[in-house]
Amino acid sequence: MKIEELKTPAFLVDLPKLKTNIRNMKERARLHGVCLRPHVKTHKTAEIARMQTPQEASGITVSTLAEARFFQNAGFDNITYAFPITPNKMAEAAELTGRMKQFHLLLDQRETARALENYGRDNNVCFSVFLKIDCGYHRAGVDPSKLGSVQLAEKMQASKHIQFKGILTHAGHSYHCRNREEIIGIAKQERDVMVKFAGRLKQHGIVCEIVSVGSTPTAVHTPGWQGVSEIRPGNYAFFDKFQTDIGSCGLEETAAAVLTTVVAHYPQHNQMLIDAGALALSKDPGAVHLDDEIVYGAIPGYPHLKLFSISQEHGLITSEAAIACDDFPVGSLLQIIPNHSCLTAALFPKYHVVEGNRVVDEWRPMRGW
Amino acid sequence: MKIEELKTPAFLVDLPKLKTNIRNMKERARLHGVCLRPHVKTHKTAEIARMQTPQEASGITVSTLAEARFFQNAGFDNITYAFPITPNKMAEAAELTGRMKQFHLLLDQRETARALENYGRDNNVCFSVFLKIDCGYHRAGVDPSKLGSVQLAEKMQASKHIQFKGILTHAGHSYHCRNREEIIGIAKQERDVMVKFAGRLKQHGIVCEIVSVGSTPTAVHTPGWQGVSEIRPGNYAFFDKFQTDIGSCGLEETAAAVLTTVVAHYPQHNQMLIDAGALALSKDPGAVHLDDEIVYGAIPGYPHLKLFSISQEHGLITSEAAIACDDFPVGSLLQIIPNHSCLTAALFPKYHVVEGNRVVDEWRPMRGW
Repeated sequence: MKIEELKTPAFLVDLPKLKTNIRNMKERARLHGVCLRPHVKTHKTAEIARMQTPQEASGITVSTLAEARFFQNAGFDNITYAFPITPNKMAEAAELTGRMKQFHLLLDQRETARALENYGRDNNVCFSVFLKIDCGYHRAGVDPSKLGSVQLAEKMQASKHIQFKGILTHAGHSYHCRNREEIIGIAKQERDVMVKFAGRLKQHGIVCEIVSVGSTPTAVHTPGWQGVSEIRPGNYAFFDKFQTDIGSCGLEETAAAVLTTVVAHYPQHNQMLIDAGALALSKDPGAVHLDDEIVYGAIPGYPHLKLFSISQEHGLITSEAAIACDDFPVGSLLQIIPNHSCLTAALFPKYHVVEGNRVVDEWRPMRGW
Repeated sequence: MKIEELKTPAFLVDLPKLKTNIRNMKERARLHGVCLRPHVKTHKTAEIARMQTPQEASGITVSTLAEARFFQNAGFDNITYAFPITPNKMAEAAELTGRMKQFHLLLDQRETARALENYGRDNNVCFSVFLKIDCGYHRAGVDPSKLGSVQLAEKMQASKHIQFKGILTHAGHSYHCRNREEIIGIAKQERDVMVKFAGRLKQHGIVCEIVSVGSTPTAVHTPGWQGVSEIRPGNYAFFDKFQTDIGSCGLEETAAAVLTTVVAHYPQHNQMLIDAGALALSKDPGAVHLDDEIVYGAIPGYPHLKLFSISQEHGLITSEAAIACDDFPVGSLLQIIPNHSCLTAALFPKYHVVEGNRVVDEWRPMRGW
């Protein structure tokens, strides 16, 4: 089948680019001597996770318990659930712990540690758990400068129902950067905060088996990971317009696109209608810290075209110059590189895997919670 | 089952409120003497569509051909596909035309009329088609003040493979309103533009069997529909924060919410983490024309709580006053009224139907294209 035969909107995965992105990250991890535990939430497919890991037993990172279950069923038995556990998810986490060689949780609240300890005692389970550290993003994690953070690690270490696995952070503030230099700055902060805190824990007799960092921008532009044992980037498999804008990659490296059809021209408003709207692209506004003007994706080959408005199934493109209707006749196809590939991919029941103009495979991501 | 037993995040449909919203719109249409052809893209479930229509043979509106197929399979045989048809979708539209009593398309381009005519001739099909009118929203539709619009209607009427069904518009600019009075103004414009154009077509010997208007805000605050034959609101089944903000409904009328768990407290940043992020709520920013400050939903009962940041699975709540951790202990539940219920509903594989605290049913929406 050829791309032209697909129904639109469709989600395209460029297989050669995907392979290159995956190879580059593996090589980067190898070169710097860290384990790569890819975050599979970007694509949620067993096919890509298998490409990202040397074998199924290699570790991956997931964002939901439903993902953990899906990938466990697909043969993965070493998974980190990288979202703080809550009491209402402990029974499912316990069950998954019993079904895998390694299943790691994380927490950053004393109440959660207490609840996990109680659950473990009542149900005779020992959970493998990371302490989540806030390295500067301020979304989640303990403040490593506070004594309470060490005390929480001590409490975890002392529990019979918690195996203290180490410390984990996500440098999500790398997404606020403007260029490679700023990303390197965040990457250093991420590493240094974690290494320093691991050292502090060691002084208190607590050994971090794993010091885990992550984020695609900091993984791409690492200044070296001395003292870090594993990295958990995810977005790098596809990349997207956001990563391009902040300097993680070039637009030509992005491996995921939404195929759309030109539906109509409205020369009176210099607008062109396409059949990719908010349900095909997500309403992620992209790197708004770099540009006040919101567009909902990049159109390779046509940098003058701006996808400035999306509603459920409608997308509207305009341009500073008049759009030549003949260049984009009704029925012709365009490809849109999404602002945020993780959110866009999650909207499609299937991915069309392409090599050049040929559709070579079809992959179905998991969804839900 | 009780709400407390659900995995989070979960999509809740409040059945009594849903029924009230549906009854109110039916009553409004009856009172004003217009047919109600509800847009089912908001919920994409056969269950709600059946509640919205007196019987399955009654007309509904869909936004994709996949929806048309799904609802046809569920017994509906009178469907308007309210997105301009394109050449690559004509084969599927022809097949659906053959499978239903009534299946209506729409177009607003001369090229599309020509392509549809050609497809119909080559495949011996006659399509039922609306001319899409731009009543002021400027997203899609012909400009009714231009002679070309009458000429396109004449071309459609003259075609042996097009049954000219009438004219259709969507007053989406009602979403830019700030209050009831402004919405009434748009509703008058929507009606008057359509009635005037229908009159103009009549002067040219073209009869509009149906004059179709739509949008939840203008349907809720209609000033009367003299000359209009059908309305196509959709969002009213659930409503949402956006509709509340512009004055279409009260927050207490919203019938859909995302159930989420409090995951963590970070008093140092006055933030609270929940397990509903962009994949549970969508990144729709809401009525940004009314408030510069973006929040990703309303939390009934706690107007001081602001869901100010969402990433894939994380949501962060803050408040101007200090958040009292004891009021929202880790593991406790919150309900979020989404900014845009259509986009939020589309993210969930299933809806939990609730009456008070009890989960009384589970509905599965269709998805994809």
